[in-house]
Amino acid sequence: MAKIEKTTSASKNSVEDQTNEQVLMPVPYLLFLGDCQIEEAAKTAFGLVQWRRELCIGQLRLSDCKIDVGLSDVTIQQATSMGAKSLVIGVVNAGGFISDEWVSYFVEALDAGLDLVSGMHQSLSDIPALKEAARRNGQKLIDIRSNTRNFETGTGRKRSGKRVLTVGPDCAIGKKYSALSIEQSLRDLGVKADFRATGQTGVMIAGRGIAIDAIVSDFMAGAAEWLSPDNDPDHWDVIEGQGSLFHPAYAGVSVGLMHGSQPDALVICHQPGRKNIISVENYELPSLRDCIELNMAMAKLTNPAVKTVGVCANTSKLSAQEAEVAIRAIEDEVGLPCCDPVREGTEKIAKYMLEIYN
Amino acid sequence: MAKIEKTTSASKNSVEDQTNEQVLMPVPYLLFLGDCQIEEAAKTAFGLVQWRRELCIGQLRLSDCKIDVGLSDVTIQQATSMGAKSLVIGVVNAGGFISDEWVSYFVEALDAGLDLVSGMHQSLSDIPALKEAARRNGQKLIDIRSNTRNFETGTGRKRSGKRVLTVGPDCAIGKKYSALSIEQSLRDLGVKADFRATGQTGVMIAGRGIAIDAIVSDFMAGAAEWLSPDNDPDHWDVIEGQGSLFHPAYAGVSVGLMHGSQPDALVICHQPGRKNIISVENYELPSLRDCIELNMAMAKLTNPAVKTVGVCANTSKLSAQEAEVAIRAIEDEVGLPCCDPVREGTEKIAKYMLEIYN
Repeated sequence: MAKIEKTTSASKNSVEDQTNEQVLMPVPYLLFLGDCQIEEAAKTAFGLVQWRRELCIGQLRLSDCKIDVGLSDVTIQQATSMGAKSLVIGVVNAGGFISDEWVSYFVEALDAGLDLVSGMHQSLSDIPALKEAARRNGQKLIDIRSNTRNFETGTGRKRSGKRVLTVGPDCAIGKKYSALSIEQSLRDLGVKADFRATGQTGVMIAGRGIAIDAIVSDFMAGAAEWLSPDNDPDHWDVIEGQGSLFHPAYAGVSVGLMHGSQPDALVICHQPGRKNIISVENYELPSLRDCIELNMAMAKLTNPAVKTVGVCANTSKLSAQEAEVAIRAIEDEVGLPCCDPVREGTEKIAKYMLEIYN
Repeated sequence: MAKIEKTTSASKNSVEDQTNEQVLMPVPYLLFLGDCQIEEAAKTAFGLVQWRRELCIGQLRLSDCKIDVGLSDVTIQQATSMGAKSLVIGVVNAGGFISDEWVSYFVEALDAGLDLVSGMHQSLSDIPALKEAARRNGQKLIDIRSNTRNFETGTGRKRSGKRVLTVGPDCAIGKKYSALSIEQSLRDLGVKADFRATGQTGVMIAGRGIAIDAIVSDFMAGAAEWLSPDNDPDHWDVIEGQGSLFHPAYAGVSVGLMHGSQPDALVICHQPGRKNIISVENYELPSLRDCIELNMAMAKLTNPAVKTVGVCANTSKLSAQEAEVAIRAIEDEVGLPCCDPVREGTEKIAKYMLEIYN
C-alpha cells in the first residue's frame, strides 16, 4: 500500500483543471456493500474496483448480502490494521437514503479511525449518531453528492474545445465505463482529454466532478456548463451521461446535463438483450435507432452540429463469441463503430471521432 | 379589507386536497418591486394582481424601478397602517438571488410588523440581517421555494383521474395564466378541477403547490407525481407548466415536470410575434408546429395517449383586432381551438377537452 497517494486526485491534462473541485477521500478504502441484493445497486463498489482497484483493500458485507465485488471479505478491525483510511458506501438505492441498519457499522468504522464516504442524497451529518461519532473521533463525513458551490442557471453559450457525452436508453448500462474508457483511448492516441464525472461513483473514481442529480433542478444545465468550461480547440471533455431520455424518473436530469454539456459527439451505450427500464415497472427499452434519434433531436438545441460517433455495447451477460456477433450486428445496423469498453476498450470509437473532427 | 380571510387557502374541490401542502401567507400584501427593469421579471407581482387583486394593497418601488403593476405606490409605514400583513417580493431574477440593496427595506418591513415572503432560490434565513430582524420582531420569513417534504423518485405508474399540462416554447409566455383560466373554465362548466401550482408565483396565488425548479433534480418527476395524485376518473388536474423544451437552461425541468405529470392533454401556450427565447442569447423560438411535435414526442413516454387540445395565445402586445386575426390564423394552422385566456378565458378549450375525453 506504500505507493498509494494520500488522497485521490485527478490527473492534470488541460488548461482548466483548477476550475473543477477536488473531492478528498483518504485512501485506501474499505467498501461497504451492506445488504445489497442486486448487481446494479452495487455499481459504486464495482466501479471503484474496476477503475481504482489499487485503492480498494476489502469489502464489508452483511450476512444477507448477495453481491461480491471480488475483494477479500474483511471486518472493520482487519481493514484498519491493513491500513484502510475510509469506509466507502459502495451501494446505492432509489432515493439515496441511508438504511437504519447500516448506522451501527458506520459508527464502528468512525470509532476505528476511518472517514466515512457516501454518495447518497441524504447527508451523513443529518444522522445524529454519525455526526456525534465523527466529532468524538475527529473523523470526516464526506458527502460526494453535497455541493457547496452555487451554480448559475445555464446560458446556452457555445464554448471552445470539444465535448463527447455518453448517453443510453437506461440507467446502469455503461455510460460511466464508456466515458472512462474513451478518455483513456484518447489519451493513448496522444489527445488531450478529461473525464468529467457527473454521478457519485464517477466523482469517487475521478476525485472530482459534480453529482448532477443532486443539483437543484433550475441549475442542472448551468452546473453542466461549469463542468466542461472553455478549453483548447483540440481538447476533448469526455462527459459521463446520466439516466436516460426514456426513463420516467430521470429524463429531466439527462436533458439538463445534455443541454449544459452541448456535446459535439454522442456515444450511445447499449446492452444487447436488455428489455425493460430498470427500477420502474412496465417501461420497455427503445430500439437502438429510436434511442439515437431522440438523443440527437434533444442535443441539437445547444449544438446543432452534434453527431453520433459510435456505440458502446455492454456485453457483460454474453460469452466472448456472442459478444462478437452482437457487436458486428450493431455496426451493420447503425453504420458506426461499436465496441465493448470493458472487453476491448474504445480505440475504434476514439479514432473515428478524431477522423471526423479533424 | 374586512372580508379577506386571514391567510390564503386553496379551494376544496377534490378527494385528495389534504395531500397538497398549504403555504401560509398572512394577507393582505404589500408587493415589493425593487429596482425592476423589465415586465417579465415582475411576473410574480403581475400574477398576484391579476388573480388575487383583492389581497394586494399597494406596491413598493425603488427610485429606479421601471415597472408599475397598477397598484398605489405606498411606503412600508403607509402599508402597515392600511392593514398589510406581508411584504411579498414580487420580482424574480435568473438564479433567484436576493439583491444586497433590498435588505434594508426588508429589515424595515420586518421591524414594522410585516412577514416577509420570497419566491427566490436563496433562503431568506441565510441572510443574517433578515434572520435577526425576524427574530427580534417575532415575524416570519416565508420561503415559497423551500420544500420541507422529502419526495421519492418517479415511478411512471399510471394514476387515475385526468390531467392537462400547459406547455410552451419559452418561459414567461402564459403557462400559469392559461392553467388558472382552464381551471376556472372547467369549474364554470361544472367539472371538478384543481389548479396545480409548480412555480413560486403559482404557489403564492393558489396557496399551495411545489416550486418544481427548486427540487433536487433526481426528484423532479417524483415531486410532480406527488402533486397530482390518483383522483376521481372525471376529475381534472390543471398543471402549470414550467420552462420550455427549447430553453437551454430549463428544458430539463420541463421534462421532469411533464413526465411526472403524465398529462392526458397538452395546451400549447404561444405568443404571436415573439422571436427569441428570453434570458439567453441567440436562441430562436421554434415554430408552433415544432413546439407541438416535440412536446407530444416527450409526453408520450408516460402517457402514450396524450393529445394536444388547444392553443392559448398571449396577445398582450396586440390590439383587440390584431389579436382576433392572430387567433383565427392559429386555429386555421393547427386545427385546434385557440383563445387568449386573459382577454376571453378558455371556455372553448375546456369544452373541446370535455368533448374528446367523454
